[in-house]
Amino acid sequence: MSLIVSKFGGSSVSDAASINRVADRIVAMKTQGHDVVVVVSAMGDTTDELIDLAEQVVGSSEPPQREMDILLTAGERISMALLAMAIDSRGVPAQAFTGQQAGLITDASHGNARIIDVTPGRITECLGTGSVAIVAGFQGVNPDANDVTTLGRGGSDTTAVALAAGLGADVCEIYTDVDGVFTADPRIVPTARRIERITSDEMLEMAAHGAKILHLRSVEYARRFGVEIHVRSSFSMKEGTHVITPSEEEEGEMEAPIISGVAHDRSQAKVTCVGVPDVPGAAARLFETVAGAGVNIDMIVQNVSVAATGKTDISFTLPASDVALVRAALSLLADELGYDDVLYQDDIGKLSLVGAGMRSHPGVSAKLFGSLRDAGVNIEMISTSEIRISVVTAADQLDTAVRAVHTAFGLDAAEVEAVVYGGSGR
Amino acid sequence: MSLIVSKFGGSSVSDAASINRVADRIVAMKTQGHDVVVVVSAMGDTTDELIDLAEQVVGSSEPPQREMDILLTAGERISMALLAMAIDSRGVPAQAFTGQQAGLITDASHGNARIIDVTPGRITECLGTGSVAIVAGFQGVNPDANDVTTLGRGGSDTTAVALAAGLGADVCEIYTDVDGVFTADPRIVPTARRIERITSDEMLEMAAHGAKILHLRSVEYARRFGVEIHVRSSFSMKEGTHVITPSEEEEGEMEAPIISGVAHDRSQAKVTCVGVPDVPGAAARLFETVAGAGVNIDMIVQNVSVAATGKTDISFTLPASDVALVRAALSLLADELGYDDVLYQDDIGKLSLVGAGMRSHPGVSAKLFGSLRDAGVNIEMISTSEIRISVVTAADQLDTAVRAVHTAFGLDAAEVEAVVYGGSGR
Repeated sequence: MSLIVSKFGGSSVSDAASINRVADRIVAMKTQGHDVVVVVSAMGDTTDELIDLAEQVVGSSEPPQREMDILLTAGERISMALLAMAIDSRGVPAQAFTGQQAGLITDASHGNARIIDVTPGRITECLGTGSVAIVAGFQGVNPDANDVTTLGRGGSDTTAVALAAGLGADVCEIYTDVDGVFTADPRIVPTARRIERITSDEMLEMAAHGAKILHLRSVEYARRFGVEIHVRSSFSMKEGTHVITPSEEEEGEMEAPIISGVAHDRSQAKVTCVGVPDVPGAAARLFETVAGAGVNIDMIVQNVSVAATGKTDISFTLPASDVALVRAALSLLADELGYDDVLYQDDIGKLSLVGAGMRSHPGVSAKLFGSLRDAGVNIEMISTSEIRISVVTAADQLDTAVRAVHTAFGLDAAEVEAVVYGGSGR
Repeated sequence: MSLIVSKFGGSSVSDAASINRVADRIVAMKTQGHDVVVVVSAMGDTTDELIDLAEQVVGSSEPPQREMDILLTAGERISMALLAMAIDSRGVPAQAFTGQQAGLITDASHGNARIIDVTPGRITECLGTGSVAIVAGFQGVNPDANDVTTLGRGGSDTTAVALAAGLGADVCEIYTDVDGVFTADPRIVPTARRIERITSDEMLEMAAHGAKILHLRSVEYARRFGVEIHVRSSFSMKEGTHVITPSEEEEGEMEAPIISGVAHDRSQAKVTCVGVPDVPGAAARLFETVAGAGVNIDMIVQNVSVAATGKTDISFTLPASDVALVRAALSLLADELGYDDVLYQDDIGKLSLVGAGMRSHPGVSAKLFGSLRDAGVNIEMISTSEIRISVVTAADQLDTAVRAVHTAFGLDAAEVEAVVYGGSGR
């Protein structure tokens, strides 16, 4: 008998029929003798519909974040109550709990709160009576004000992992609409393989660089507390991908594959400051300004200064949605820094090769660059971490690049196995 | 400067446009210098849609009441957050509060909880900062379990009155889709007049006997705590109807009109037990059985026993929706009581004439019966209280009866003033 925390996203509970399908699945787990805690997102597009209503009401004003959180958390109240009813109607007792009732204590950052403690006394009590506990994802409580908070995008994954950690669960299952984490996006690489096991370090790199299946914060949380995540499909009983956090000792013993997968990201843009005077502190001033605008930059490249002019070009990438912020910030800096021009480019793509094994295998970069050259793909920027190499290409070359690299590193499956169902919940 | 509690029902906040209209109205009150607490119901048909979802999920099973309350209270979370945002976007600070946060403490009767205490500390605090407080209607908290509860039909009216009592508000405004309480339903009697002032005793009789504008429990609460209710239209700035609870002394001084209004009710059915043996205890046994089935009966008539047979007929009225319950209960009693037959009749109507002044004016019944006779309406049953006379007629004679009585007691207005907008919120 295990204690299982299972999270179902919005696409798994989009209507009464799918809620009943999830209920059947949970009843089956319970029948096998497991204790089950279910974390559930809002039904289908509920959250987007509520955001739309708020926009209709406030017009161009910014809605107050505290009230926005009250509004959005209504979605999970609906889905959690319905799922508890569905399970109960099958003769298995079930109780629904808000984030507050489940003990998800957060800070006061409405809209993007951090979990600071988990006190799941009521959940333990509920399980003790033989009931299934249904918990609203995405929400917690700021105990100082006794107000509901939300955890931001991907928040339900984080709720599930935090509860699994707080309850000492054996596994945290994240149900989604694909069979697990793949070596590449099967929509681009039909021969992509499902990854059976991946370390949380690798999963973090994959998530940070475009793999959308798990939200970054939930993986960080799982890594910190040693929670095993099992990413799997709500449409089949197949094994999915286990995301594990080996101890240092275990890590030494593991025969890690050199490469785990190829992530890609189309959401970045590139900014180039042309002709920046090559004087000490110029780059620092530039990036202070960008950071001051609240923008997270990803990759940075600075050309070698051309001796004759004493000027250099500095390029960096950032989320395309933040370009307007950077544009405003840099326009204030033009006189002070005295650069010649700023170029904005959003038709770029980023490919990231991730694998813990590349730590001990030289030659991975050479093979990557060679495969791209053979495929006729031009590399615009490069950045690396200990277990990742990323390159920026033109957007229209990204698919070609992903397929070429996937093949070059021997990741292709003998036959196509992936079935892709579409978008995923939060 | 006054402290005003204003309640807006579902039809007043059915979409973004109507929420913005309510926001304008509240901002105007605030601009006039009043402190304002707003109680709001779920948007339009939200509650019915949520009930429908629950039915889809549980099929023929009975959904657990605790989870049903979690589900239904999502509706008020949405409307209260949106209304707070709308007011805030007009430059007037506003904060939304759940029933729990507003201190509406109830018992544990999920689906039909009673308010046992009101501790509105957060609301007072909010008003102290110059903000408008928006409170979710219809919901409270059972503090023993820390679970949300709902107050049943008409619950938002009760929330508003309870908050007005707890805060010592100057008035509790109930906004609705008609101009106030009328001397009769203007859909039946186009010349019905708006009542300017009515005592809570009279309003209770009107509400208990078919006038749907205020829920019975909210009037009971207002009467007990001396809260003045102002029923008025959310579509105009006209004065509505003031429901007041005069002290005994004031009551003595008041020049009460003999008759306040004519209520009617089509939702009742009549049950007749034919040939009940006229022995001591037979009626008691009969009504014990009906009460045991959880049915509230209204009027009772027992014929004079026919000496030759030693048998009598007993008729009573009850909500038509409870007929199935009574039918089941009586079928178990047939052998024991030995009556000849039971007749069920749901094509009846009830007319009630209400007025505190009839206490001191003899002849009201005679005038009532005379006007019905002149209109050709047959009276099937009669019941009276100190300030009310009710008669049961055939359903198809009810409208004729209401019009005849309204005219006979001089209630007709010189010209038609009422505008009727349709259904009302909960």
